[in-house]
Amino acid sequence: MSATLIDGKAIAAKMREEVAARAAHLADEGWQPRLVSLSVGDTSAARLYVRNQQKSAESAGVAFEARDYPYDTSLEQLSGIIQGLNADPRVNGIIIQRPLPDHIPVKTLQKLVHPLKDVEGMHPASIGNIVYNDLALGPCTAVAAVEILKTLPLDIEGLNVTVIGHSEIVGKPIAFLLMGLGATVTVCHHMTRSVAMHSRAADAVFVAVGKPGLVTGDMLKPGCVVIDIGINRVEGKTVGDVEFDSCAEVAGWITPVPGGVGPVTVATLMANAVQATEMQMNHYRDAYARTDM
Amino acid sequence: MSATLIDGKAIAAKMREEVAARAAHLADEGWQPRLVSLSVGDTSAARLYVRNQQKSAESAGVAFEARDYPYDTSLEQLSGIIQGLNADPRVNGIIIQRPLPDHIPVKTLQKLVHPLKDVEGMHPASIGNIVYNDLALGPCTAVAAVEILKTLPLDIEGLNVTVIGHSEIVGKPIAFLLMGLGATVTVCHHMTRSVAMHSRAADAVFVAVGKPGLVTGDMLKPGCVVIDIGINRVEGKTVGDVEFDSCAEVAGWITPVPGGVGPVTVATLMANAVQATEMQMNHYRDAYARTDM
Repeated sequence: MSATLIDGKAIAAKMREEVAARAAHLADEGWQPRLVSLSVGDTSAARLYVRNQQKSAESAGVAFEARDYPYDTSLEQLSGIIQGLNADPRVNGIIIQRPLPDHIPVKTLQKLVHPLKDVEGMHPASIGNIVYNDLALGPCTAVAAVEILKTLPLDIEGLNVTVIGHSEIVGKPIAFLLMGLGATVTVCHHMTRSVAMHSRAADAVFVAVGKPGLVTGDMLKPGCVVIDIGINRVEGKTVGDVEFDSCAEVAGWITPVPGGVGPVTVATLMANAVQATEMQMNHYRDAYARTDM
Repeated sequence: MSATLIDGKAIAAKMREEVAARAAHLADEGWQPRLVSLSVGDTSAARLYVRNQQKSAESAGVAFEARDYPYDTSLEQLSGIIQGLNADPRVNGIIIQRPLPDHIPVKTLQKLVHPLKDVEGMHPASIGNIVYNDLALGPCTAVAAVEILKTLPLDIEGLNVTVIGHSEIVGKPIAFLLMGLGATVTVCHHMTRSVAMHSRAADAVFVAVGKPGLVTGDMLKPGCVVIDIGINRVEGKTVGDVEFDSCAEVAGWITPVPGGVGPVTVATLMANAVQATEMQMNHYRDAYARTDM
């Protein structure tokens, strides 16, 4: 292996330190950040993820409340719950755990979350703000993947980047974030005629498809960066979307799975929680100042 | 010249016909679409553009009111005006003509326009909805450029497209719209190391930079589509961003400037006006039905 392994846990720990300092400052002002996580139905799939969020929150000084609702909770009931959380000044961020039961359309719920409490960065207005380069609360996984690239000794301006996967919450936002930083970005997906043609031309490859072994070493330019966002279970093991061994031979830097993008994503959620709380505090103070005039 | 010239005026006329039918139907229901255009300060730069919009509106059965405000109108006054128009059920769309005076931040005004009346498709929520492939009101120029591509006998799925220019209201939205249609999209800009490398690999090239002569024939793949979104004044003539003669030798299809994307953009604005009015009518009817329960 020639590639340098990117240590997601170390990057996450550093982010969490900064978050903890901001959270402590907010707590001093009477605004300790507080997240509420909503799980519906069979929560076993997301349980590990929720527990990771809870642990990360605790170490960052962010209060975290995990709520479980039964499978047959209706869309109307969930809407009411979210509207209640939107209105509650003691709640600063709302997390909707996936998967949801089939009768609950996830996008409908995400749009109900107030943009100032949208710590997952999923509301259309949050996504639109990324396009406008006016990043407040970005989608956590996409932001995390880009944060990892920023830690490397590369100039992102002019960098040729290929993003494989064009999902609304990962691939596309990664593309806009990178465009905002000056990279030249190509987005490939299942309809692309030759992914290898685009990946071989890239200084950095982001992969977010959900197919183990999708990217192999012969699809890479020597010395490039590989950021693997996939999370797949194969024979009881968690693996990403890239064939790790062959890619690590060719790449200059590569993220492991697990231990790469995952921990940084959770740390980004906490950074969003602090950011959301700061925005809400300022919003309330502006409102208060105005009644004072 | 070997390229087929794309007739923007004919495409626009066909769109306007469809829009006129929908507008007539809305008028029958008591909902004739009505646009209000706001110009501030020296309006000479935008006057021709506003007049074109007015003419297009008339021929599409859309009422159009052009309002001019003096240069020293404050942001607070304009905010009040927009909020009044948002609340007025007889107004279905609000257009903010650019350029605005320096003391008026255009984005702040655009965010004030109610998303249901955002016929220019500039609100962050409108942009975010494009990313989510949930297109209601898209930014007119970007939508127009993509509509032109759709009229050609090409399969957009898997098409390699290079977009040159990454502005928030043209280049980036074109990229998302094309991704939504299944194209493989690369976005280049002033920080891209070699634009020619990317444009030569493309089956279709969209150019939206504002630099005459930026793209030359030797930067194209033979038979490709060239969609020129630039509008520049050179020696008293209006020209696009591509060197027309050399590009027309190589390309398979090319848009002229003027007469290409421009007329389709105005027709798209009218399509948005009708779409916005339909959404508002349904919104009011839903609200009415609810009070009836």
